[in-house]
Amino acid sequence: MPIVQIDLIEGRTTEQKREMVKRVTEAITQTANCPAEAVTIVIREAAKQHIAKAGTLMLDK
Amino acid sequence: MPIVQIDLIEGRTTEQKREMVKRVTEAITQTANCPAEAVTIVIREAAKQHIAKAGTLMLDK
Amino acid sequence: MPIVQIDLIEGRTTEQKREMVKRVTEAITQTANCPAEAVTIVIREAAKQHIAKAGTLMLDK
Amino acid sequence: MPIVQIDLIEGRTTEQKREMVKRVTEAITQTANCPAEAVTIVIREAAKQHIAKAGTLMLDK
Amino acid sequence: MPIVQIDLIEGRTTEQKREMVKRVTEAITQTANCPAEAVTIVIREAAKQHIAKAGTLMLDK
Amino acid sequence: MPIVQIDLIEGRTTEQKREMVKRVTEAITQTANCPAEAVTIVIREAAKQHIAKAGTLMLDK
Repeated sequence: MPIVQIDLIEGRTTEQKREMVKRVTEAITQTANCPAEAVTIVIREAAKQHIAKAGTLMLDK
Repeated sequence: MPIVQIDLIEGRTTEQKREMVKRVTEAITQTANCPAEAVTIVIREAAKQHIAKAGTLMLDK
Repeated sequence: MPIVQIDLIEGRTTEQKREMVKRVTEAITQTANCPAEAVTIVIREAAKQHIAKAGTLMLDK
Repeated sequence: MPIVQIDLIEGRTTEQKREMVKRVTEAITQTANCPAEAVTIVIREAAKQHIAKAGTLMLDK
Repeated sequence: MPIVQIDLIEGRTTEQKREMVKRVTEAITQTANCPAEAVTIVIREAAKQHIAKAGTLMLDK
Repeated sequence: MPIVQIDLIEGRTTEQKREMVKRVTEAITQTANCPAEAVTIVIREAAKQHIAKAGTLMLDK
């Protein structure tokens, strides 16, 4: 703990994810007062046909 | 908010998902009294080897 | 399966939740072609200090 | 209910997953006093670029 | 990793949860070939008005 | 989207959570190239009897 689950639309590069987990971990450790080793992050990429906002798939927007 | 996460066995068509998010969003907005714009849905499809009921993978049923 | 997880801001009545799960289940069964018995829904209520949009807690909006 | 969600790094065989859901279900039913039929398990496999510990992707370890 | 999330109806004792996490962890480590230290479990208890099966709240069954 | 779910052991102050969501949102928007308005965060606090590491409840550590 903490465990962070991030749902994203697919399309980010590995370099973006590398930087994202580094910075999210810093944000958590500095505000929750816990060591970086305690932070686990899982990224889940979703296709545009698997996300909807206001009742409409991202695919159709 | 609300955030709706739906875990499904893989195999539905895009048209089924399109109708599903439309109708689930209506069900949420009409009972929770919130605007459709507030509803986000994430669909997660799982392979039959990744779901189990009563200790047995769907793959083996 | 399907499994539906709904994150909501706290404050809905039991009657609203009763109607919500009834209607969400109908929406799922009619579009995913599965029996109602297969649909499990978990509602999770969150306090306004536990949800944020655009970097700001709901508590502060 | 109970619903069990297991996030794993990809790479386990179907046989390992088959044994995993069998044994996790036994562990749950014997300690929560519920029938096996009540236990649903969803396994989610994540690529090494989608998991991070201590701010570093598994890919880079 | 692995991360295990368990949704349960409220009502189990601490002793039941203590035994549950011990046994679920054993089940995971022995089938996924990972050390016990790698396994994190989060238990989420839900009230009977927050779980539904077949469109009906547990509260009403 | 993105949707961020953070599981934490209970005990952080509202001020810590306020700062956490602000900084996590910045970390996401700057690395995923999305507007802050697109980022939703849900914090879930867990009691020490609801989290386990290596088969042992936090309560017992």
